[in-house]
Parts: sequence; structure tokens; C-alpha cells
Amino acid sequence: MPQRKRYLFVCVNRRPDGVPKGSCAQRGAEGIHVQLKAALAERGLAKVEARACSASCLDVCWAGPVIAVEPDGYFYGRVTPADVPEIVDALASGRRVERLVLPPEDFTEATAAPPLPAPPRGAPPQA
Amino acid sequence: MPQRKRYLFVCVNRRPDGVPKGSCAQRGAEGIHVQLKAALAERGLAKVEARACSASCLDVCWAGPVIAVEPDGYFYGRVTPADVPEIVDALASGRRVERLVLPPEDFTEATAAPPLPAPPRGAPPQA
Repeated sequence: MPQRKRYLFVCVNRRPDGVPKGSCAQRGAEGIHVQLKAALAERGLAKVEARACSASCLDVCWAGPVIAVEPDGYFYGRVTPADVPEIVDALASGRRVERLVLPPEDFTEATAAPPLPAPPRGAPPQA
Repeated sequence: MPQRKRYLFVCVNRRPDGVPKGSCAQRGAEGIHVQLKAALAERGLAKVEARACSASCLDVCWAGPVIAVEPDGYFYGRVTPADVPEIVDALASGRRVERLVLPPEDFTEATAAPPLPAPPRGAPPQA
């Protein structure tokens, strides 16, 4: 298969419970990666348009789950499972989901908007 | 810290021994990620210029270890530990290491150049 037009790197880093900034995995990133990969395949986008990969820490833990969209060079943040269809729709039509794109101030914890709450321990995965 | 100018995604996917196309981890990618991360920090490049992340399969297993350099949108392939200083030097001066950049034919196994040999099982990590 050719080099894909885009690669979406979903941070799936997990920090121990209790670390104040939290982590993407703690807020459901692993499920989002699986869901995104399946959605791209279902839409016939996986072979040419975009590949969903998991990645180690992207250093914006407080804004997680985050997805680096490359080579466009922007990050989606505070992504929930409910956002995945809209992300894939936008990708298919060459757009981006503006409400999820992290502004520069979100890359620094001190100036970032509030994080998503972490799901309670033992909660079932979000679908 | 700000969004870095570049993110280097080192595939660290591992396939079972005996799979013909091999995998990046089988050819030493995990060590290359660690080495790259340390080299960027030592050169003072980690906070602004570039972040080294690990990633799941980038679907060019036969050309591994591979590194996606984003947002530039090119892939390094058949990377060895000996290549890391040159990769970091190039990054520091806004260049790329042309001999390692994968051409389009390397993205398809049938047309790719030969893979690196996998190190023998039980071999010490390359340094």
C-alpha cells in the first residue's frame, strides 16, 4: 500500500492514577484508537487516505486524549468516542473539526483549558 | 512546553519471529527510540525543535526500523543505531538524511529494496 495521505497518532500513554495531569489512556484513548482505526476501514479510507496509529506521550497530557494529525501538523484534544465519526467525516472531506483543534495555549499546562474528567475506576469503556 | 516543530514517530511494532516481513522492533527499533530521545535531549533540541515518540505499526515493516518525520511527511527507513547522530545533526540544521529517506517504491513490499537483516535471537542490543 502507498504512503497514506495522513497518519493520525493517538497518544495512548498511561500514567498512574493520582498523577494530577492525568493521561490519555486514563481518559479512554486506547478505545478511541481502536474505534478510529475501525471507522477508517469501514469508510474505505484506510488504504490510501489515513492510517490510525497509537503513539507514546505527546506531552499534552492535560488536554488528552490527543491525536496528532500529520502531516497537517495539528492536534485534536479532549477527544471522546462520540467525536470519532465527526473526525472521520472531516477527514473524508478534507476538513478538520475546528472545535477539537488545540490552540497554542493548550500545549502548556498552566494556560490550558480544563481537562476532560477521567472516567471513574472500574467504569466500562465508553462506546 | 510549546508544540514541537517536529515529531519523530519511531515504529516499535514487534511481530513474532519467523514472520517473513519482520518488524521494526525485531530489528532494534526500541533501542533506536531510546537513543534518539536521549540524543535530542543532549543536544538541547527536545523542548522546542523535536520530540521522539514511539508508534504502532506504520505499515512498512520490510523497510524497518522506520521513523515518520512530521509534519515534513517523510519516512526514514532501515535505520540503525549508527544513523541516529546523523539524523539529529540533520534535524538541528534543517536538513534530512537523504540516503535514509524512503522512496515511494519502498512503501510496497513487492517493490521495496532489501530489508536490513534481523539481529540473531539473543544478540545483545546494538549500541
